Amino acid sequence: MAKIQVATPKGVRDFSPHEVRERELILRVLKRNFENFGFLPLETAAMESLAVLQGKYGDEGDRLLFRILNSGEYLKGVEGDLRELSRTELTNAICEKGLRYDLTVPMARYVATHWQELPHPFKRFQIQPVWRADRPQKGRFREFVQCDVDIVGSNSLHNEEELLDLVSMVFYDLQLPVEVQINSRKILEDIAARMGHPELLVPMTVVLDKLDKVDKETVAQELVTLGFEQEDVKILLEICEGDSSIEKLNTLGKWINTKEYIEHMAEIVQILLYKQWNELSTYSEEAQKSFARIFDDLNDETYRPDTAYWSSEFSVHFVPTLARGLSYYTGTIFEVKGKGVNMGSICGGGRYDNLTGIFGLEGISGVGISFGLERIYEIMKELDCFDIYGAVDVLMTSEAEDMIELLMLTATNLRSENFKTLVPYEAMKRKKQLEYANKYKIPWVVTRSKLTESFRLRDMESGKEYELTTEELINCLREWRTKKV
Amino acid sequence: MAKIQVATPKGVRDFSPHEVRERELILRVLKRNFENFGFLPLETAAMESLAVLQGKYGDEGDRLLFRILNSGEYLKGVEGDLRELSRTELTNAICEKGLRYDLTVPMARYVATHWQELPHPFKRFQIQPVWRADRPQKGRFREFVQCDVDIVGSNSLHNEEELLDLVSMVFYDLQLPVEVQINSRKILEDIAARMGHPELLVPMTVVLDKLDKVDKETVAQELVTLGFEQEDVKILLEICEGDSSIEKLNTLGKWINTKEYIEHMAEIVQILLYKQWNELSTYSEEAQKSFARIFDDLNDETYRPDTAYWSSEFSVHFVPTLARGLSYYTGTIFEVKGKGVNMGSICGGGRYDNLTGIFGLEGISGVGISFGLERIYEIMKELDCFDIYGAVDVLMTSEAEDMIELLMLTATNLRSENFKTLVPYEAMKRKKQLEYANKYKIPWVVTRSKLTESFRLRDMESGKEYELTTEELINCLREWRTKKV
Repeated sequence: MAKIQVATPKGVRDFSPHEVRERELILRVLKRNFENFGFLPLETAAMESLAVLQGKYGDEGDRLLFRILNSGEYLKGVEGDLRELSRTELTNAICEKGLRYDLTVPMARYVATHWQELPHPFKRFQIQPVWRADRPQKGRFREFVQCDVDIVGSNSLHNEEELLDLVSMVFYDLQLPVEVQINSRKILEDIAARMGHPELLVPMTVVLDKLDKVDKETVAQELVTLGFEQEDVKILLEICEGDSSIEKLNTLGKWINTKEYIEHMAEIVQILLYKQWNELSTYSEEAQKSFARIFDDLNDETYRPDTAYWSSEFSVHFVPTLARGLSYYTGTIFEVKGKGVNMGSICGGGRYDNLTGIFGLEGISGVGISFGLERIYEIMKELDCFDIYGAVDVLMTSEAEDMIELLMLTATNLRSENFKTLVPYEAMKRKKQLEYANKYKIPWVVTRSKLTESFRLRDMESGKEYELTTEELINCLREWRTKKV
Repeated sequence: MAKIQVATPKGVRDFSPHEVRERELILRVLKRNFENFGFLPLETAAMESLAVLQGKYGDEGDRLLFRILNSGEYLKGVEGDLRELSRTELTNAICEKGLRYDLTVPMARYVATHWQELPHPFKRFQIQPVWRADRPQKGRFREFVQCDVDIVGSNSLHNEEELLDLVSMVFYDLQLPVEVQINSRKILEDIAARMGHPELLVPMTVVLDKLDKVDKETVAQELVTLGFEQEDVKILLEICEGDSSIEKLNTLGKWINTKEYIEHMAEIVQILLYKQWNELSTYSEEAQKSFARIFDDLNDETYRPDTAYWSSEFSVHFVPTLARGLSYYTGTIFEVKGKGVNMGSICGGGRYDNLTGIFGLEGISGVGISFGLERIYEIMKELDCFDIYGAVDVLMTSEAEDMIELLMLTATNLRSENFKTLVPYEAMKRKKQLEYANKYKIPWVVTRSKLTESFRLRDMESGKEYELTTEELINCLREWRTKKV
């Protein structure tokens, strides 16, 4: 056979052993926290019927679906001149499956089908790759892993609270300082209505979304051009500039007509601030009284939560201009950004009513959040956060070929204790042994020569060496592991 | 939007939380053992260029590839009447990517591209789904997970030995008794040559492969029909019926012309039997002397390996008729079957020379083994091996709505200690609390009423209840976890 090209297709990647192990560090933190919060794992098939995928992600999304050619005589049932068919007609005739585009739609399909058997509310996490035929560019891939948690079937505000608890614990464990922005689509709706143009909701949010990029005057001008009154725009922008989340909520609540969601939002923000105990004193006396009202007798030293996870490295802000894919969410929306890094959103989500309606299960509300593995990885790489151990604990080798079999036998003992043990299959000169251990960050080298009855163990960090029996060797490694943890 | 059908495509599956957790139990054992043996993780992209995939798996394989329709105006560059093109021509014109069919070809591509940066030999494991457009049937799926380990770039027999060590440890951990069958393609070649018809190698192995299904006379007749001499066939079948692996190797070695591979095989089998110390005494004095020769001074009580992993539940047999996809392997072949279950091979592999040649890296030999997750899962399910814990450690709930917030705060403390803690978002009557905990196998229920200052902890197994402070609660759970491990 002729030699062939060996590149991966555009926009997809292989992960080297080192990269897999770095990414796994993040995935382990995510998974452990998801489990600690009582989320259950779900895995769905990579392929979905196009009937399930199409029409769920807008025209842009439909365009970006990867479609799988039907097997066998795929043209058999297609009548007439193929050139006469529209591209959509031909595509639908020859493809009935596609690769999943996200994890939310497959989850909604699963939940709608299995609702009766599932615990209610159903809390699931899902960590799987998704595929999008996007134009590849820096940080945007055609295959990437999504890490989603969702709570389906509960309207309680505690859902939102818990998801933000989860976010705080994940980024605490990853040691990444982050800022959460929170808003509700209902509040945006109320704002558009208060300004007399509920029909301008979408263009209004598009313009407001620019506030962190362009200056206030430009935004104001654009809102007026859309059709809003100069006076209303001025009030809105002043509110958005408020000093604290509580202040913004207070002034906004006085201005807009319906106040239900403002109160909900205030409650969430206050719960969050309560957990960030340290920040509490920076708030006005009025705000502090409001805490007392919500927490009642909880507002007492006895009930003080573990604030480690709500340190100053984690902050939550109400941002009335936050929009985030309006067509999708119907209630609360959140977005998480790394502090001090220029990377956009690394985690986001929100509440969507009637999530499963399209699949036949009506009236079920869901709220979820998605962690952006690729971007979190990029940030941790940039900040040099990865200090992972070598993949191997012990290198067992000898200068004498006929000692290898004995080393392999001893390796079994070490491996049965879960020490990661590598036995090169051939003899190695001492110099090469040490070079190998250094290169691959292996902390221990065990050798054996024909002359001795015992093993020689070298601690690569200190350079110290010990002559040990098998039993002593294992005890020494056990002790090292205890200290390492 | 209209409600739509919600079935998964034919032959692919969703995995419920319970199934994911059962499958994970197997995957954890595999991964831990792969790591203990010093294999490094690799992940490749789900999509490969069709140039990489096509022609690697035979005509049947090419037919079973899932092809991905090119994005955008995929007909743009296709000239002439589409109906005039052959199916292959049209397919190649509109598809340039496919889903990976196995993990070996992507690994070979990766190794050929990155050989210079990798440790030599390169030991990699890879656990990822693969896709085949096979006709779905019981136990055969269109999406399934492969779990592969390979050692690339070493000709040492220790490779084969280590892979069998790995197999023994994996199935010991899974508590599944298995039998390994071992052979070499070289031995099959030598047999065909000894019987005067090297060109009949492939049909000969196809016939020999039937020995465990049809009777000896039928096989003998078929071999004669193929063109072999009656006398040769008689000798061969007598050898295959030999009592022990060592005997078969001895008589076969005396009969066939080239003996190199027989000696290699004898060495492997003897090493394996040596590890299965207990079986040694059942062998003839001659065989035992032969061990002494191989192990020299190792054959001494001091060097006795940890035989736990080589118990009577694990056995290795030389089977000179074992064939296993001849076109692929060029050296040793192994196949693993569960003892006492009717499931075919659950694990198999072998050595293939020049693995990476097609991708431009010549002369590199590889040997690998693939664990069949789906079949191992089926067997463990059949034998009722799964006794997994519930997904949640602690259910925290109250009959009083206004206690929920406090429970959520306390949950943070428990979660920061990695106790999987579920807080239903609404109050629950006591009866419902206990029903819920029973249904989902949650071992602990924590409640709090407005009247008390402490938590009430119920041990669901014993029914005992305790009144505890937060600190006592955590200590109690810590103690439980220590005992559980």
